[in-house]
Amino acid sequence: MIAVLGAGSWGTALAWLLGEQGLPVRLWMRDPARAAEMAASRENSVYLPGLLLPPSVAPTADLSAALADASVTVIAVPTQAVRETLRAASGLLPPCTMLAIAAKGLERGTGRRLSEVASEELGEGLARRVAVLSGPNLSGEIVRRVPTATVAAAREEEVALALQQVFSTPAFRVYTNPDLIGVELGGALKNPIALAAGVCDGLGFGDNTKASLLTRGLAEMTRLGVAAGGRAETFSGLSGLGDLVATAHSPLSRNYRLGLALGRGESLESAQASLGQVAEGVPTTDAACRLSERLGVDAPIIRELRHILYVGKPVAEAVSILMSRPYRDEGPFD
Amino acid sequence: MIAVLGAGSWGTALAWLLGEQGLPVRLWMRDPARAAEMAASRENSVYLPGLLLPPSVAPTADLSAALADASVTVIAVPTQAVRETLRAASGLLPPCTMLAIAAKGLERGTGRRLSEVASEELGEGLARRVAVLSGPNLSGEIVRRVPTATVAAAREEEVALALQQVFSTPAFRVYTNPDLIGVELGGALKNPIALAAGVCDGLGFGDNTKASLLTRGLAEMTRLGVAAGGRAETFSGLSGLGDLVATAHSPLSRNYRLGLALGRGESLESAQASLGQVAEGVPTTDAACRLSERLGVDAPIIRELRHILYVGKPVAEAVSILMSRPYRDEGPFD
Repeated sequence: MIAVLGAGSWGTALAWLLGEQGLPVRLWMRDPARAAEMAASRENSVYLPGLLLPPSVAPTADLSAALADASVTVIAVPTQAVRETLRAASGLLPPCTMLAIAAKGLERGTGRRLSEVASEELGEGLARRVAVLSGPNLSGEIVRRVPTATVAAAREEEVALALQQVFSTPAFRVYTNPDLIGVELGGALKNPIALAAGVCDGLGFGDNTKASLLTRGLAEMTRLGVAAGGRAETFSGLSGLGDLVATAHSPLSRNYRLGLALGRGESLESAQASLGQVAEGVPTTDAACRLSERLGVDAPIIRELRHILYVGKPVAEAVSILMSRPYRDEGPFD
Repeated sequence: MIAVLGAGSWGTALAWLLGEQGLPVRLWMRDPARAAEMAASRENSVYLPGLLLPPSVAPTADLSAALADASVTVIAVPTQAVRETLRAASGLLPPCTMLAIAAKGLERGTGRRLSEVASEELGEGLARRVAVLSGPNLSGEIVRRVPTATVAAAREEEVALALQQVFSTPAFRVYTNPDLIGVELGGALKNPIALAAGVCDGLGFGDNTKASLLTRGLAEMTRLGVAAGGRAETFSGLSGLGDLVATAHSPLSRNYRLGLALGRGESLESAQASLGQVAEGVPTTDAACRLSERLGVDAPIIRELRHILYVGKPVAEAVSILMSRPYRDEGPFD
């Protein structure tokens, strides 16, 4: 039995993916009326309309029933709701369940990674069975069965291998990785850089500029991630580079769209108002900037982006500062 | 005095960039009539129409005059013409000139990198003053002055620093790198992967697929490049990742367009015929495949692409083979 907590587009897509393989899934959501409606219509009419859930997926609003006998518990609630969801689940989780965190980002305020939140809420005992699922994984494409790759990261190899086995399908290719910290930070730090890529497109710059920005942005993500305990190679992988490239080219991404509007000269207030909700990259830019200061890591793109988002610096001025910094090397001469 | 050999779009854009800084440039091309016309009209009407060359750029078809007193000689002729151009130049080069290779790719037949070709033609004495200029650098964008970054790679730090000084402008940011091999291979191996990205778009797959392909493709480029003597980090830089991302999203790239046509079901013959000329990625795919076999490096994407291009394997079959390979890790568990 697999429990998927959260029935947004990502949770629903994962429940569908598992259910399609014939695995029994309970898909938990907070609202009983929505669960009843989904159980009757077999469809998530809000987030993935038109997709029929396989018979082995059972929608429910009963957390205790959802978690009973779960060998794998997938966390797909919104990033900022992960702590309260884990707190509610903590007494109900079967002792040997593996936890697969499918949400991405850092906790607002604390700047914690979500696996750190899990350790705090569930204790170190369960923490050894925590994994993270991350990569260039747009839900709408997964349910169209387009070929997609992702990463299952866990400290313990057996946990990563078990999740690779559970999630792999002919169209969804899962790679394992022991670098939990790097995979989590890749999925979080890519948002500020994708936002900056939107700014760059909004300013009417070209493919040279965007490719240069993504490359130097990935270099910043890597420096920061390594200083925080991740592996450099992880950031060149699916959860770093892969997710960054997908997000920075996707008009579906809120972060990219916010940047695009800023680059076109809209104010932050007006750009955020037309998005309807806060883009995750905005608080992450602040958190990443603080992290870079704390770790003593140079992160000029993230720093200039923070000035644009929080101090109202004109974007043209930020670009000019980035382009006129002292000459640098890309790799050190010995 | 700077000599730029080759007046295609890239050579002309570099001559313009240097001339705009007030540096005296001789722009050499083979055809005296074209040189005379360009000297009179101050325009490269074939490759960059509408761009006015600064007064300090002197077009010429006299190789000896072009090279006289050149402190820097830029090689911007087509890849397969580099050997004959260097051979013609070899007796004429001033003894202390630095050589900046701006052409990209491997020599057909031999599979040699262009800096190797330079060593063979000019001797090891000059080889210590050889550098490579590579990155996401579309000429049409450079002359629009959109912010762009690139790499100057050389074994000797003073050579890389000198070229960084010469080429840097407020809109063109040059990073140095000691990894000549990695920078050259990045610029060459990105072409097969960009071609594969075109196939992926032609098949109607999504952003997930393309991002996954680019990431795993970069992993192959890196494995191959490291086995050939390059540094892994270089491939995550401007000449690897940067150039790959720009090329794989650019409808201006012949490699991407060829892949797009193949993905849409056109035959190789018809796709190549409508391109008008051979895409550099086709012979490089063959060379890279041989390299991977010689070095014992696994390169499944390049291998399947070679089957499509040279054996006529249906693209759908190649995709299915890539997706059904044994499970892998992205990073090793210790």
